Amino acid sequence: MNKVGIVGYGNTPFTKDEDKIESILHKSANQLFKKNPEIDKKQIDAVLVSTNNNSKYLSPILSEMVGIQPKIAHSIESLCNSGTNSIVSAFSYISSGLANMVLVSGAERFDSPGQILEWDNSRGEFKHPIFWASIFSKSYKQKFNVSEEDLAIVSVKNHKQAQKNPNALSKKTYSVEDVINSKKLTEDLRLLDCSRPCSGGASIVLASEEISKKITDTPIWISGIGQKTTSAGFTKNESLFSMNSSKQASESALKMANKNISQVDVAEIHDAFSVCEPMALESMGFTNQGEGMSLVKNLHETNNFKINSRGGLIGCGHPLGATGISQTIEIVQQLQQSAEGRQVDKPEIGLVHNMSAAATSSTVLVLEK
Amino acid sequence: MNKVGIVGYGNTPFTKDEDKIESILHKSANQLFKKNPEIDKKQIDAVLVSTNNNSKYLSPILSEMVGIQPKIAHSIESLCNSGTNSIVSAFSYISSGLANMVLVSGAERFDSPGQILEWDNSRGEFKHPIFWASIFSKSYKQKFNVSEEDLAIVSVKNHKQAQKNPNALSKKTYSVEDVINSKKLTEDLRLLDCSRPCSGGASIVLASEEISKKITDTPIWISGIGQKTTSAGFTKNESLFSMNSSKQASESALKMANKNISQVDVAEIHDAFSVCEPMALESMGFTNQGEGMSLVKNLHETNNFKINSRGGLIGCGHPLGATGISQTIEIVQQLQQSAEGRQVDKPEIGLVHNMSAAATSSTVLVLEK
Repeated sequence: MNKVGIVGYGNTPFTKDEDKIESILHKSANQLFKKNPEIDKKQIDAVLVSTNNNSKYLSPILSEMVGIQPKIAHSIESLCNSGTNSIVSAFSYISSGLANMVLVSGAERFDSPGQILEWDNSRGEFKHPIFWASIFSKSYKQKFNVSEEDLAIVSVKNHKQAQKNPNALSKKTYSVEDVINSKKLTEDLRLLDCSRPCSGGASIVLASEEISKKITDTPIWISGIGQKTTSAGFTKNESLFSMNSSKQASESALKMANKNISQVDVAEIHDAFSVCEPMALESMGFTNQGEGMSLVKNLHETNNFKINSRGGLIGCGHPLGATGISQTIEIVQQLQQSAEGRQVDKPEIGLVHNMSAAATSSTVLVLEK
Repeated sequence: MNKVGIVGYGNTPFTKDEDKIESILHKSANQLFKKNPEIDKKQIDAVLVSTNNNSKYLSPILSEMVGIQPKIAHSIESLCNSGTNSIVSAFSYISSGLANMVLVSGAERFDSPGQILEWDNSRGEFKHPIFWASIFSKSYKQKFNVSEEDLAIVSVKNHKQAQKNPNALSKKTYSVEDVINSKKLTEDLRLLDCSRPCSGGASIVLASEEISKKITDTPIWISGIGQKTTSAGFTKNESLFSMNSSKQASESALKMANKNISQVDVAEIHDAFSVCEPMALESMGFTNQGEGMSLVKNLHETNNFKINSRGGLIGCGHPLGATGISQTIEIVQQLQQSAEGRQVDKPEIGLVHNMSAAATSSTVLVLEK
């Protein structure tokens, strides 16, 4: 398979602003081109927009705003992993030879229609993700004898890490007590266990091997891709305390990259809710089943930013269509050793885990220098 | 570039039914699998949904309904050429090696939100496509001394041809007088000059060369792909009587297929409005500028179904996300000589032209046996 590199990014603060979706898209794309003057817009032959926003034709709109006349231009939607789906699509356009350089721009408003799953009654009366998160939390706690205080550490750690990320929505740290005393949403879920909807954008440019090497001395290569959709409805999940789609996606991605999970130095994990972080870490083999919280606690206590250095979804906020792209940018920054206060010690191999709707689908990317 | 074939299709009637989008998607995909029992669902590793519908996560929903657990699953939107954008994306997944077999399913409801371009004030007070169509009609008529009676022949021809297509929305023929006496929408546009919104679905399966040859003796190969987006807003169009994006897309597609336009035996042209057919034929070089209506008249008088044999958008109806896929299926049927009463004499090379929003973007595909 032809190599594909990431040669530039633009990431802007995640906020509660009420900007129009076009403005959010434009902001991160514009920042990308300002930061990377060596990227020639005329060479960009595809523009992919990742969003759950209901506006149509956003890719031609963004293209016109930034001054690109691409061959390929369309939007991609897959709820919370729209971002990594767009990156994989960009990879395929380049790897197949249909494009040489692709702008992928993700954006979402705080009031995204992707937040409520109107179609899935299995998710509870209000069709809101807190219902599956709640059931996951209950099952996981019961199965592995984990307390709500234990799970709260995910939120404490990720809010702490977010303070080193100037783009994160979270501007303060919390204690375990703060988390378990925050607003009770369901029997098993507190407000601070949840990632928060917000407005935000994130853009990257991907290019063929030849162009990547011309543009930058430090391209980051996408060496592994794994994706799996097991179902749409929550009730079809095989397990309520593991993530089958994440397991399969991670196995595929690591196989393609010819790596094993122990070689991963830094990872972005889709912590839509506290329980998701240990579950995902276990499902992908970072640790054994039931030992996810031990790993998280250890990282927290040793101030090791290996997992979710940008603050995760809980610390950064979760603008659906931008999240997977923002996660990928974080790994790019880590591998390029430009993550400043969040920098992990000399990472060589990074991983992105991005999922949707109770882990009914997952994308895993492996990135390398 | 690795070869990609079309190995099966499912097409259902275009109607004014008020079915849910999930039902429309399911209907054509289900018909596909019934008609092609040799396609093993377990081998399908990507499911792409083409639609302007606001529902989210439709690809995993469709996958679950038809019993597929794909790797890649997402929706694609680009207004009226969402369908061919999805086909090109499927091509790239297969050609790159990320997938071996892809289901592409397009669907739209009659009340699609893609019909009104809320964002583009350049399109007139009501932001409805009839405004650009009207301006195109006026400009084209003035520039090339074409009358409204001339343009009406496009509608007469395509309604006539639709009567040979059991899936078309149109169930009757019209005379030139009927067209010019139909409801006046603007000074330069009558109701029968317009394609009509409707509910409809269309599905195809694409596969790698190896799998295509195993599944069927008559795969149809996508030998040429061309795409171009020149802008989003109508006022950025270079010309009001030609289609620059269609010209560029067709040049790219023919170059990739190593063919010239005179070799094309059968073509689907995006006749969203009467004027679009001669303009597109001229822009792609089927005939000289200003001679599009002579070509259309000649085809009509000789009862030659070469252009828009299924009845075009005007005869078939225009369910946005399904249209490009339905056009592609028509060319597949023509090349496989299974188009029954619509069959063109032994075609070898076919072309699909699918565009959006006043031809601000276009896709052209070349298909061969």
